[in-house]
Amino acid sequence: MTRYIVVYDVSDDKARAKLAELLQKKGLTRIQRSAFVGELSKTELKDLLRKARQLIDEVNDVLHIIPICRYDWSKRIIIGRPLNERGRRVEGILFV
Amino acid sequence: MTRYIVVYDVSDDKARAKLAELLQKKGLTRIQRSAFVGELSKTELKDLLRKARQLIDEVNDVLHIIPICRYDWSKRIIIGRPLNERGRRVEGILFV
Repeated sequence: MTRYIVVYDVSDDKARAKLAELLQKKGLTRIQRSAFVGELSKTELKDLLRKARQLIDEVNDVLHIIPICRYDWSKRIIIGRPLNERGRRVEGILFV
Repeated sequence: MTRYIVVYDVSDDKARAKLAELLQKKGLTRIQRSAFVGELSKTELKDLLRKARQLIDEVNDVLHIIPICRYDWSKRIIIGRPLNERGRRVEGILFV
């Protein structure tokens, strides 16, 4: 399993909602309106890429998937309140 | 210098614009409406944190700063077109 941050700009509301739903189904946690973080196996990543390609308009949209190693993740800094997987604020998880 | 991804949700339009401007001034590149990537020294990171704290409403907003090592960065996957520092699409930088 590798941890990834997934960050996207998707203009179509339906496609964007479907993408968010897909990422939630894969167990990722929302950290911003259009950004999720979580662990994926190689198979799950492959499946995510296949499905994401169907939702992304390659001219107008963009999706970045960046792996984050354990050390880097331990060094993250958060100001304010992170969002939970339903897009609501989570109290007292991590503050700086 | 360490590479960071900076991802935020800032509800106030003025504060959000100021934060984006601050990140651009620090030489970071926009990869999504509210996400930037780039290298910062320890001094620059400290300065960014100090200024960002003044722009962030800690109840309603959130800002994540996650370091990304060279190896992880080299393994990133992009579908569609990344944005340049003015928020416009950049042609032919990286595709998958």
